[in-house]
Amino acid sequence: MRPSNTFPFSSEKKHRCPLSHDVAVTVPAPTAVASATALRGGPVAPSRSRLRPLGPDEISIDGGFWGERQALNADVILAHCETWMERIGWSANFDRVVDGTVGRAHSGIEFVDSEIYKLLEAMAWELARRPSPALDARYRALVARVAAAQEPDGYLHTSFGHPGQPARYSNLEWGHELYCFGHLFQAAVARLRGGHDDELVDVARRLADHVYREFGPDGRSAICGHPEIEVALAELSRALDEPRYLELARLFIERRGNGLLATTVLFGHEYFQDDVPVRDATVLRGHAVRALYLASGALDVATETGDRALADAVALQWRNTVSRRTYITGGMGSHHQDEAFGDDYELPADRAYSETCAGIGSVMLSWRLLLETGDTAYADLIERTLLNNVLASPREDGRAFFYTNPLQQRTAGASPPEDVLSERAEASLRAPWFEVSCCPTNVARTLASVALYFATADAIGVQLHQYGDASIRTTLPDGRVLALQVRTGYPFAGDVSVTVLEPVTAAITLRVPAWAQDAATLTVAGATTRTAGGSVVVARTFAAGEVFTLHLPMEPRIVHPHPRIDAVRGTVAVERGPLVLALESPDLPDLSAGTSGGPASTEHAELDLTRPLRSTPTGATASIALRADEDADARPWPYAAAAAAGSPAPDRAAEVALTPYFAWANRGPSTMRVWLPVAPTT
Amino acid sequence: MRPSNTFPFSSEKKHRCPLSHDVAVTVPAPTAVASATALRGGPVAPSRSRLRPLGPDEISIDGGFWGERQALNADVILAHCETWMERIGWSANFDRVVDGTVGRAHSGIEFVDSEIYKLLEAMAWELARRPSPALDARYRALVARVAAAQEPDGYLHTSFGHPGQPARYSNLEWGHELYCFGHLFQAAVARLRGGHDDELVDVARRLADHVYREFGPDGRSAICGHPEIEVALAELSRALDEPRYLELARLFIERRGNGLLATTVLFGHEYFQDDVPVRDATVLRGHAVRALYLASGALDVATETGDRALADAVALQWRNTVSRRTYITGGMGSHHQDEAFGDDYELPADRAYSETCAGIGSVMLSWRLLLETGDTAYADLIERTLLNNVLASPREDGRAFFYTNPLQQRTAGASPPEDVLSERAEASLRAPWFEVSCCPTNVARTLASVALYFATADAIGVQLHQYGDASIRTTLPDGRVLALQVRTGYPFAGDVSVTVLEPVTAAITLRVPAWAQDAATLTVAGATTRTAGGSVVVARTFAAGEVFTLHLPMEPRIVHPHPRIDAVRGTVAVERGPLVLALESPDLPDLSAGTSGGPASTEHAELDLTRPLRSTPTGATASIALRADEDADARPWPYAAAAAAGSPAPDRAAEVALTPYFAWANRGPSTMRVWLPVAPTT
Repeated sequence: MRPSNTFPFSSEKKHRCPLSHDVAVTVPAPTAVASATALRGGPVAPSRSRLRPLGPDEISIDGGFWGERQALNADVILAHCETWMERIGWSANFDRVVDGTVGRAHSGIEFVDSEIYKLLEAMAWELARRPSPALDARYRALVARVAAAQEPDGYLHTSFGHPGQPARYSNLEWGHELYCFGHLFQAAVARLRGGHDDELVDVARRLADHVYREFGPDGRSAICGHPEIEVALAELSRALDEPRYLELARLFIERRGNGLLATTVLFGHEYFQDDVPVRDATVLRGHAVRALYLASGALDVATETGDRALADAVALQWRNTVSRRTYITGGMGSHHQDEAFGDDYELPADRAYSETCAGIGSVMLSWRLLLETGDTAYADLIERTLLNNVLASPREDGRAFFYTNPLQQRTAGASPPEDVLSERAEASLRAPWFEVSCCPTNVARTLASVALYFATADAIGVQLHQYGDASIRTTLPDGRVLALQVRTGYPFAGDVSVTVLEPVTAAITLRVPAWAQDAATLTVAGATTRTAGGSVVVARTFAAGEVFTLHLPMEPRIVHPHPRIDAVRGTVAVERGPLVLALESPDLPDLSAGTSGGPASTEHAELDLTRPLRSTPTGATASIALRADEDADARPWPYAAAAAAGSPAPDRAAEVALTPYFAWANRGPSTMRVWLPVAPTT
Repeated sequence: MRPSNTFPFSSEKKHRCPLSHDVAVTVPAPTAVASATALRGGPVAPSRSRLRPLGPDEISIDGGFWGERQALNADVILAHCETWMERIGWSANFDRVVDGTVGRAHSGIEFVDSEIYKLLEAMAWELARRPSPALDARYRALVARVAAAQEPDGYLHTSFGHPGQPARYSNLEWGHELYCFGHLFQAAVARLRGGHDDELVDVARRLADHVYREFGPDGRSAICGHPEIEVALAELSRALDEPRYLELARLFIERRGNGLLATTVLFGHEYFQDDVPVRDATVLRGHAVRALYLASGALDVATETGDRALADAVALQWRNTVSRRTYITGGMGSHHQDEAFGDDYELPADRAYSETCAGIGSVMLSWRLLLETGDTAYADLIERTLLNNVLASPREDGRAFFYTNPLQQRTAGASPPEDVLSERAEASLRAPWFEVSCCPTNVARTLASVALYFATADAIGVQLHQYGDASIRTTLPDGRVLALQVRTGYPFAGDVSVTVLEPVTAAITLRVPAWAQDAATLTVAGATTRTAGGSVVVARTFAAGEVFTLHLPMEPRIVHPHPRIDAVRGTVAVERGPLVLALESPDLPDLSAGTSGGPASTEHAELDLTRPLRSTPTGATASIALRADEDADARPWPYAAAAAAGSPAPDRAAEVALTPYFAWANRGPSTMRVWLPVAPTT
């Protein structure tokens, strides 16, 4: 059983999918396509879904914007993660289990095992993408150390159960044992999807069997404080064709929301998503990463078990969360206190938590909903989140990362040192590593597998969801081979050209982002037609080498926030193509020649809406009214009667560059803002 | 040595103090006045200061608005605190020390001793205010239990040092031992200032001597994670005329800011004010209560030691904090994460932490600066903070309290149960008690002693700083007796009448709040003159029974936020007299007859600035544009191009009551906002 397209977000409801008009081909409605084999697919491979994900053998990024990022990941980020965890002793925790010293010499917080597993997953995807004997050796060496620490009964964790440590499962709320297991399972899935059934898979199998015995139908009725094992077990079940793992995932999902977890002064049931059963919840709440991982696992279970009510609940949660609890960058989570979603429309720019991992969790959830429904709204959010939240995390050189991704930086802080652990939350510059370092390894595994979110297939063709230089070669169920090459300057340029490499009759669907409104056009066989948002289908008999091109509008545009988002009332943002732009202090002119003197600040900037935005190769320029910093004595009390309020006249107006948000904080300490106050029109 | 009036906030600089013009009396500049005896004065009694605080034998509240609150405190709140702490075993911790069971049966978090001490302080002030044999018996019984738990060497804490507990001083960062001691010292000071040198004072003396041995010049160079002992030791030194305690306070102040405290993942040096030496800091930062208690202690030390640089540093910190890091309610602290100050102008209404205890700390600091300098700006902030932050904490019935005091409540939550402990931070309604329950007892001690913040004396007369029905009888240094009675409907009505009960030649100074601008008038001997903000002095030879009256303007007024406070851009607040008003959902009309149907929400309200505000007996009415809640599907993505943005036309405009912020949430679950979006003028 699979959910029908009565999903709240079925594509028919919100997005038109016009055919290109130069050919008259009837395109049947998409139908469920079973994965060819258990070993095929990307991070997610539903046994049935509207769209079929492509595996690393079917799609690869081969250059351009995303190619650069995958190369940075392969060449720098993987080694950065590996080196840091070796240096601070996290990897050695596994060796300490073997030599019996882990009880007194464990390094790091309780869930550092998960960072090793996310690195293994990243390595596995990277090896599937581009074989490398050197990386393969590093991967195998690390797997061997992990495997050596596995207990005879399958249990595997470096913080519990050894002499001098708390007992196994003695702290399910905060111990993160099952959470760590989940990341090991996802690493094993990556290995399987790359075509390898190796030692890590064996370890995962033994560990999953152990967890099934402990927490399955005959085990204790308990859950982990941090969801993750649910989504991982569902996928491991798919990859190994083992229904017990799916059943265990289902049990974890169903148990949740009944107050099984003990709460503390600051962390209540909502924090853990243990307040309301998943199928009864209407919006994501509590700790954002936990909420997103849980919803992803719930949808996997719903898909495999044909539980439409559960699938509908997850889709409703996505809709209510995206419409009221999501930043313009796609970032989620507005509370530092508990790394949590706030109330509807509670979206402060300065205190945006927008954890990088929450962005990755959002991509995971949206991808599952996209496969399930085919609705391009999910692909739109993936694009926005990847480009404007997840990609903001790594520094240009790949050696430092944002954990939180605020949309406003008021003061230019100091550079974190390159050689020490940083706190996680407060940063005005990226830090090389964190005491809780979930984000760098999460970025690594996402970049290594990002091509697998770019396209899907169904019975009649392929669907392009994300744009970058890529090669696709896939076989449709009836044996037709579709071989494509995509070339584009995206996300900076708007033309996406698709070359069909071999003759075929098929339908190729391209997403038209909602931000393009009605301004996108499609050129097929020399004829250009305007397309609406949603998607456009080119269904025809292609000759070898035939090219068609989607043209997306790249003029910078003003975006207004919903009037209920109090935190950014009276401001606008500027977007260009799929990118959210930001004003950053290095781009401001010096005001020392102005009336007030001193450096200009992004805190004093206002956007003059009466002057046009102008496009630049990667961003825009805008007319910005600037003033110097106010003297502290000027207003001893910051609230005043009408006569005294309002902005003083600006010291200067200037054409200032707005640059992609994801690239901010790569030029030393700076201030920044995405939402720009609108200059009064007088 | 005392600091001269070169203070940044000397009254000459910002506030004019015009003489009333009906008499020609030369008023000498205020000079330092030594306290008559160590036993005299309120919570603070500097050995030298510009203004001399009055003790409970010199001033009392005898009715009216504040009389009601002191009666509620005496009749309900003290017993509420006492009963709760008995019920949940916090008081019994002292008994458990005696019977040897505290190591395995301690109740509550590490610093619950401090709640007992704050209750004792509240009882001591209440007994000084109005003797009561019944309360005296309760006080003495509780003191006896505390005293019985003191160790032979003077140490006294129920969470450390007993069998089964961590060693004394093994966790200075988080153990709060010295913090608890400080509250015991303040209770002893209250007892001394009430004229009693009793068992609690003996306990305090022994404990302070112990601390001096452990942490004094010959002891360990360490500090407590939570400042409090500094301000308490300085006062105990004054009350007992014991210079060693002042020296110890000075050492704690000087040691701070040098990274002595170990930090954690989430709590760095700034959180503890251990990042910068107190004398080098320019603004309050980190945990707000800690910062305010520390600054208060630093000023006490500066005053007593004649350390002008330190006093100037504290005054600068106050000025920069008030001008950039303070809510319109006087609330301080905008981060939930670490209960901390945010950056300059980072003042979200919805996530205002504005802890009640921070408001009390702000009053403590401003009062010390007022005594030191005579600057009415400090008294203005005390008024604002008492009425709009501290008084917001207790429920009307005195049986529940706000810990945080947000300026916007988006959703009407559930009522916390009346019989269980609540989490501290998140509340849409007041809770009866908290696991960390610092605020109720802090409110209790503040209400019991609040009269002592109302007036001061100097060589030539008295100064009235806060307005309420009160009686004052004090003797000036030259033997003149000044006996006054104050009668007023303040804070709801603007007339403050002062009757001089006995003939005297003296200067009586009345604060003219800054919010009154130039609209206040003074009527003396039948003649009315306009007064400016700051203060007005009535200096003359008074006949017995002579009355003069200050008239403060009570028309509601619009207040605009500083343009750099992003969180409330495009909104205004309404104040009336000293009160900040709020829009609360119970005052909204039902929109069910409107076009959209459903209940109106404060989240959808906009203030129509083109229509006049009207005064009501306690607040105002305003023209509010209302609309019903938007359907969740109306905007699947909350950011849109210009054409789609902006507010839809309101469903209805209505005259709606704005009520005092401090009184909100007394009518069941509700939503509320202080800052009202301004309706577009079209």
